[in-house]
Amino acid sequence: MDVHAFLRERGELVDGFLEKVLPTSPGAPEALCGAMRHLVFPGGKRLRPALCFAAAEAVGAAPERALPMAAAVELLHTYSLVHDDLPCMDDDSERRGRPTVHVVYGEAVAVLAGDALQALAFEVLAQRGARAGPTERVLGAMRDLAVAAGAGALVGGQVDDLAFPAEGSDPAAVESVHLRKSAALIAASVVGGARLGGADAATVARMRSFGENVGLAFQIADDVLDRDEDGACSLVRLLGVDGARRRAETLLADALGELDELGERAEPLRELARFAVRREI
Amino acid sequence: MDVHAFLRERGELVDGFLEKVLPTSPGAPEALCGAMRHLVFPGGKRLRPALCFAAAEAVGAAPERALPMAAAVELLHTYSLVHDDLPCMDDDSERRGRPTVHVVYGEAVAVLAGDALQALAFEVLAQRGARAGPTERVLGAMRDLAVAAGAGALVGGQVDDLAFPAEGSDPAAVESVHLRKSAALIAASVVGGARLGGADAATVARMRSFGENVGLAFQIADDVLDRDEDGACSLVRLLGVDGARRRAETLLADALGELDELGERAEPLRELARFAVRREI
Repeated sequence: MDVHAFLRERGELVDGFLEKVLPTSPGAPEALCGAMRHLVFPGGKRLRPALCFAAAEAVGAAPERALPMAAAVELLHTYSLVHDDLPCMDDDSERRGRPTVHVVYGEAVAVLAGDALQALAFEVLAQRGARAGPTERVLGAMRDLAVAAGAGALVGGQVDDLAFPAEGSDPAAVESVHLRKSAALIAASVVGGARLGGADAATVARMRSFGENVGLAFQIADDVLDRDEDGACSLVRLLGVDGARRRAETLLADALGELDELGERAEPLRELARFAVRREI
Repeated sequence: MDVHAFLRERGELVDGFLEKVLPTSPGAPEALCGAMRHLVFPGGKRLRPALCFAAAEAVGAAPERALPMAAAVELLHTYSLVHDDLPCMDDDSERRGRPTVHVVYGEAVAVLAGDALQALAFEVLAQRGARAGPTERVLGAMRDLAVAAGAGALVGGQVDDLAFPAEGSDPAAVESVHLRKSAALIAASVVGGARLGGADAATVARMRSFGENVGLAFQIADDVLDRDEDGACSLVRLLGVDGARRRAETLLADALGELDELGERAEPLRELARFAVRREI
């Protein structure tokens, strides 16, 4: 299968939906609408939505079933980037070759755009999710998303990343941050897709383990691609490029092992995992 | 009935629940846990939770039924205050006689604590709401909360408030900001309580109108209490103290009219509305 074609096609599916649910003026202030869209269009690889769709398809559902969750994880991911870029956090003035939201719209509107993107993620899931299947599944996906977005995961990981000691520390400490800051939302994307696709409890548990391992390996691959030997919270600093690569491959193998029982229809999910970890490595 | 006793008793009910759901270290970073609790305990009057409980009771349910929603609206309200106080927004260094979150924990952790409080609001509702009754009701309450928190309401209102012209404008423009920035969340509190209490669609619609009118009158009462003649977005500047008071009373009467069919068990809700609008006026 062609993983790039899959990413492109599922990307178009989620983009069409995001276009519809993002607010427009006069329903919301014009600057806020612009700031909310700034980092959504054009976006990145739409890897999280693709994983979400592929997880639903791996359990036999049509990708459309997972659409509200796929949009929600992309909105949540985008909000976290907008806030990470703020002057009081990483203070980045560029992302994906364009000025960051606070550079274009000012700091106050950037904070508020992030806030509204988070609210929109939950709105989309509550509003559209009800049509995507039994409400129990939607509530479960929503709970996973909220936990992944919260103090024990995404936000807590960012707090610890900002305060990460520049020297010392060990691989477990780095992986704890990666697991919370990056892998939790990737796992929620996979689990949410599987849930909306109708997965049973055992499959949901395997999907969670798959998602966490892929998410962690994805983040390590990011550090390898950046040759991030100087960053405080980087496995490359502690293990070197080759050591970090080996760790990512081990995690990828563990992840793929979780999908052994799912057969042919899980092939897009497997290919996405390989792509996430090995792109350009 | 004694509205102060009702506020105290229902306040204790929601406080016990908030104490349980707020994160503690080592489940989340210690500074983040502290920052998230800073403005929750001790909190304010717990007016939104009280309205939420009273709405459930007005349709014949036990207050416990509305507990996840009551906690969620207080968490969401608290997040909005933490972000409103930030240097890039209202730049307030004190609230309720104590230093604001960013003064104690720094700006980055304050932004992140607000982010995590918003996520926790939805987590609590998704996680505990399922025990509070049919999942359709919970999803409905969640959708209302997300809409009230979003670009068309709370966040959009704050964006327009920050940019409100210091001169000119008319009462309708001021009320549009108040309706979105303050009244929408108050209405969601009432509607969510009614939904979890099992209200039918017609009652939900009346509760929404009641909540919006009370919320708007509450915000006008705030401006009157502050004698806010200089604030840009203040009805007192445009109508004077007496004119603003009359407008609040008209809105209160409209709100109470929506409850006419609900009889004796809606009395706490009526008394809370009177209290919200007339406290110390």
